[in-house]
Amino acid sequence: MSLMKVVSAKLAAEIDQELMGPQVGFTLQQLMELAGFSVAQGIYREFPPNKSSANKNVLIIAGPGNNGGDGLVCARHLKLFGYHPVVYYPKRGKKNEFYKQLVDQLNFFKVPVLPEDIGPDKWLDYAKPESTLCIVDAIFGFSFKPPMREPFESIIDQLYELQNKIPVVSVDVPSGWDVDEGPLSDMSLNPAMLVSLTVPKPASTHLKPSASHYVGGRFIPPEFAKKFKFDTFEYKSTDQVLKL
Amino acid sequence: MSLMKVVSAKLAAEIDQELMGPQVGFTLQQLMELAGFSVAQGIYREFPPNKSSANKNVLIIAGPGNNGGDGLVCARHLKLFGYHPVVYYPKRGKKNEFYKQLVDQLNFFKVPVLPEDIGPDKWLDYAKPESTLCIVDAIFGFSFKPPMREPFESIIDQLYELQNKIPVVSVDVPSGWDVDEGPLSDMSLNPAMLVSLTVPKPASTHLKPSASHYVGGRFIPPEFAKKFKFDTFEYKSTDQVLKL
Repeated sequence: MSLMKVVSAKLAAEIDQELMGPQVGFTLQQLMELAGFSVAQGIYREFPPNKSSANKNVLIIAGPGNNGGDGLVCARHLKLFGYHPVVYYPKRGKKNEFYKQLVDQLNFFKVPVLPEDIGPDKWLDYAKPESTLCIVDAIFGFSFKPPMREPFESIIDQLYELQNKIPVVSVDVPSGWDVDEGPLSDMSLNPAMLVSLTVPKPASTHLKPSASHYVGGRFIPPEFAKKFKFDTFEYKSTDQVLKL
Repeated sequence: MSLMKVVSAKLAAEIDQELMGPQVGFTLQQLMELAGFSVAQGIYREFPPNKSSANKNVLIIAGPGNNGGDGLVCARHLKLFGYHPVVYYPKRGKKNEFYKQLVDQLNFFKVPVLPEDIGPDKWLDYAKPESTLCIVDAIFGFSFKPPMREPFESIIDQLYELQNKIPVVSVDVPSGWDVDEGPLSDMSLNPAMLVSLTVPKPASTHLKPSASHYVGGRFIPPEFAKKFKFDTFEYKSTDQVLKL
């Protein structure tokens, strides 16, 4: 039986649950730190900060759940790598005290976090083609189910308009896409780069041919991957991302 | 006023407390993941796994506190990097459920964790010059205060005997050293490599001239370092360690 290259939304949820279950014992904080770091490393590969250029701004748009948390961690590492990240986090995760701590950490690193209610016109001030290297779409991940709620519907519409001027980097799944089926319309976001976490989801097969596709989240032993009928990836040395 | 190159045990404790305090909001799990990863990356730099050789074994000796926890995380990443780590963890941290989870994670990755009561003769079976690339001393860190308790006194005596046959890599502080004063006797451990975490402690100035000294734990903004009167380090690209 050949191994799959992708896992469905349903399997991705099972993998996540098992990784954080009593047997494996990973915590959300650990996995989020490694996932967010891997996205930041992928961005460094694809959009290295050019020391001679002022163009080091990265706007991170964080959603209300774990995909957003990955984005918050990514922003902190980008700052350490020499970028100028700015975070837009309009619906803050209230379920888990840890999300608040991730924001505290960003304050500690002097990463600007825009006011929650800044609104759709104001955040665009932080997405200028002449100074913004890329926009990180950390809005929705593998557990997204329609319908899309505001303010994210407007934000994603605006990202669609921007995507040919500023490259969009999606975390795990392009936001608004069906995790298993891909883009829902011709007006769906189509990112320049995707960092799939753990293993790509079926949606990733719908990326445009010019898009860069990375996998990150290097925390799976081969036996576990086989159990879920996918193969682990041949990461190099101590790398936390691999370009596919 | 010039900035210091080292911080005392007392300042290191204050830095740690502040990083995990209410303002900064880091959690132990995050910092331990990044610290353990940095040690593993340092080992990869200094002792790359040679694909053509069987010599990929690394013995990690973990102490009862946070230094031991860093070692447990390091072991997991070493496994992902292609090494064959084995962990000896004779006094397991009981204060924090998370230490147990770190052991569960090692089981998940099929990293052997020797029985707690294996005794001083048996663990030596896992430290053979012909097959062991290095031994990681993750026994005591910056909060160590004498007197040394068993079984660690015996273990460190045995490490002293072994250190010229198998290189020893110490995490943060060579175990048994006074954090501020350095080695306590001529029979003190003298590691081949030290990975200082966040910022070196005064003991590091007593390393033998042939020793490699790295700094890891890349999670400090420059303003915070200045407040504690040290300078941040010029890490390259996405590196989590820097050779000093």
